[in-house]
Amino acid sequence: MALKWYTVVVDCLDPQAQAHWWAAALDWQVIYDTPDEAVAIPKDLSEGPEPDLAEWMKRGQGLVFVSVPEDKKVKNRLHIDLAPHTSQDRDAEIARLVDLGATRVDVGQGDDVTWTVLADPEGNEFCVLSSRDR
Amino acid sequence: MALKWYTVVVDCLDPQAQAHWWAAALDWQVIYDTPDEAVAIPKDLSEGPEPDLAEWMKRGQGLVFVSVPEDKKVKNRLHIDLAPHTSQDRDAEIARLVDLGATRVDVGQGDDVTWTVLADPEGNEFCVLSSRDR
Repeated sequence: MALKWYTVVVDCLDPQAQAHWWAAALDWQVIYDTPDEAVAIPKDLSEGPEPDLAEWMKRGQGLVFVSVPEDKKVKNRLHIDLAPHTSQDRDAEIARLVDLGATRVDVGQGDDVTWTVLADPEGNEFCVLSSRDR
Repeated sequence: MALKWYTVVVDCLDPQAQAHWWAAALDWQVIYDTPDEAVAIPKDLSEGPEPDLAEWMKRGQGLVFVSVPEDKKVKNRLHIDLAPHTSQDRDAEIARLVDLGATRVDVGQGDDVTWTVLADPEGNEFCVLSSRDR
């Protein structure tokens, strides 16, 4: 197959703030940081002082934040799901994200679901799932 | 870090059709296939007859398609970027995606950009970048 899923691109009012927010949320690093575009990738792609861009090219799936003039209007059609490594981590991770500036949002999920719906500082919904340690 | 980016979730009118479309686009496999939710993951997670779900739990970043009643109204705030492995692959891959049912869309990108903007059968924008073989 000659195509690879490379990144998810997020429209932003403030790409730099968003990149640093998601880098903090995921414990990633920001490797490109301009007002028009900012990029976050996993820290394990950076063994040395410089990130291993060749390895990133191979692995892909970083987050690219790009500047757009318009703000968010409706519930996003695409969202990211995060999973805690263990169920013990879950509440602590949600508290950490809220401390970072995430907000709890109601997208009609009801009370009976196993995931928690949050939004990043620009309102992009994401979920924290139950732990995947099963 | 106790959180992992696990999947991207896509709201759909027809999760099964969308999962099969993206599996064909990426040469992935559909491992869960119901009217309410369908899941596609890379084929290399399936060495044997069954997909290696434990490995997927570790790697994450599949695509989950979920049913919603509303259709797409505005340009998506998040989109996926795909990259061809070589520049020779690029035109052939775009032609293949269009044959599969992708449409070329104008999101104001202009003529001078190095990427091509397409939309999947439910109108979700995605880009095919220049090749990453540099």
